[in-house]
Amino acid sequence: MLKFSKMHGLGNDFIVIDAIHQSVELSKQQIQMLADRHWGIGCDQLLLVQPAESAEADFRYRIFNADGGEVAQCGNGARCFARFVHDKGLTDKTVIAVETASGLIYPELQSDGQVRVDMGPPRFEPAAIPFVANELSNTYMLTLPSGPHVEISALSMGNPHAVVRVENISAAPVAEWGPQIEAHERFPERVNAGFMQVVDHDHIRLRVYERGVGETQACGTGACAAVVSGIRRGLLARDVQVALPGGCLHISWPDEASNVMMTGPAQHVFDGEIEWPIPTQS
Amino acid sequence: MLKFSKMHGLGNDFIVIDAIHQSVELSKQQIQMLADRHWGIGCDQLLLVQPAESAEADFRYRIFNADGGEVAQCGNGARCFARFVHDKGLTDKTVIAVETASGLIYPELQSDGQVRVDMGPPRFEPAAIPFVANELSNTYMLTLPSGPHVEISALSMGNPHAVVRVENISAAPVAEWGPQIEAHERFPERVNAGFMQVVDHDHIRLRVYERGVGETQACGTGACAAVVSGIRRGLLARDVQVALPGGCLHISWPDEASNVMMTGPAQHVFDGEIEWPIPTQS
Repeated sequence: MLKFSKMHGLGNDFIVIDAIHQSVELSKQQIQMLADRHWGIGCDQLLLVQPAESAEADFRYRIFNADGGEVAQCGNGARCFARFVHDKGLTDKTVIAVETASGLIYPELQSDGQVRVDMGPPRFEPAAIPFVANELSNTYMLTLPSGPHVEISALSMGNPHAVVRVENISAAPVAEWGPQIEAHERFPERVNAGFMQVVDHDHIRLRVYERGVGETQACGTGACAAVVSGIRRGLLARDVQVALPGGCLHISWPDEASNVMMTGPAQHVFDGEIEWPIPTQS
Repeated sequence: MLKFSKMHGLGNDFIVIDAIHQSVELSKQQIQMLADRHWGIGCDQLLLVQPAESAEADFRYRIFNADGGEVAQCGNGARCFARFVHDKGLTDKTVIAVETASGLIYPELQSDGQVRVDMGPPRFEPAAIPFVANELSNTYMLTLPSGPHVEISALSMGNPHAVVRVENISAAPVAEWGPQIEAHERFPERVNAGFMQVVDHDHIRLRVYERGVGETQACGTGACAAVVSGIRRGLLARDVQVALPGGCLHISWPDEASNVMMTGPAQHVFDGEIEWPIPTQS
């Protein structure tokens, strides 16, 4: 039998497996089976909690997509990982040093149960996004195939983002403009399109049309990109509450040289136990 | 805490809850939450196992769709129900008398772990399907909007079915003809479109384009309809193995006056325990 927990961060859902007290070797095919929502447990990603390899880390954690491929980082996953090791009594630290495929990270448990994660630095140079522009600017005019000229910010949070300011988030043309911005020729690797309503200087509403996915309940890097763009345009303070359809994230960017910090929820849904390996049809 | 099991029948997946040893009252909203694949446990349907109300039954069982609405019957669900009450030690009977919203049913556990379910009688009168035809016939010619004239059988297994015989199931025009048959004007309530390859007199391969859904991994009533149509056309024996993309079902129709019997797998996937009610975001 294999014990696991099911968790989510704003609807991005995870199977979390303690691979310290259980001996777990997962093939690509087994991950696909566990991640299958009809034949297995179902998840967006599977998180494997392992012993640290180096002395300065508390744990090692690996992230697998539902197709079995390993990925380097996941903000929602890091929050769920931190809650899992804490709630399951694997550590009593609140700042946890974790080895990931993209280096050491230090998710930080807050007293209210939320988790704070370092999302890295924003990058603005057009070539780094990548975005086609003659020079760096806080905003650019983008002409959409259907006609409108749209003012956007363009930046990278490890992945490319375009941010459009709108007056009313409920009426934002996400379905119409989202795909046109996502596939715009000036974003050669396509782009995540955020629609941001500035409520006041420390509160925005945000909807994100994610690259290759469509509109989602919540996009962590999109929340970071929107807040950074709002700060650079003089619209926002350095600490901002972001209301997404799936829930709220708190984003802070202390100064231009800092990394962006994201604080948000990590929700335990249930614990389970699955016969392992999954038996064939009987 | 609420204990549950996750099961599936050929990929049609269920949350199964023992409401005999647990006090469970579920609102429509709570069922939606449990059925949600990202925020909850995830399922196509939720099965509630309750004490029988009448003396002649062993259990009562209720079926809820993911949207919270109650439905009267589900062949895959009946198989999973029977395995659940047996495997969890709620009964040691192999023929189980169960009260459902559509009356008493008697699922029957086989020695190999499969479950046999009475699927009721087929009906052929065009008005009962409903199908527009001048007289009852074993096959009809249907002209599709895109041009082809297709020979079909038409019958009801409680829901309407059209069955097309094809030479090679892999090359069957399911994606092209499926939607045209489903929405054909001669089926005023639309229809499930089955594509059947007769391998030999007791073995068929079947793909079904389900009404309102599209092609699925397995359709129980579609398997019954295909076998009945094959028997009526003199192509099949009275006991037939049906290979669907999601797995195999065994269908028998002893004689014209009998109900159709379906035997198939019911797979336990995992057991879980969920905080109940699900706490709000923390």
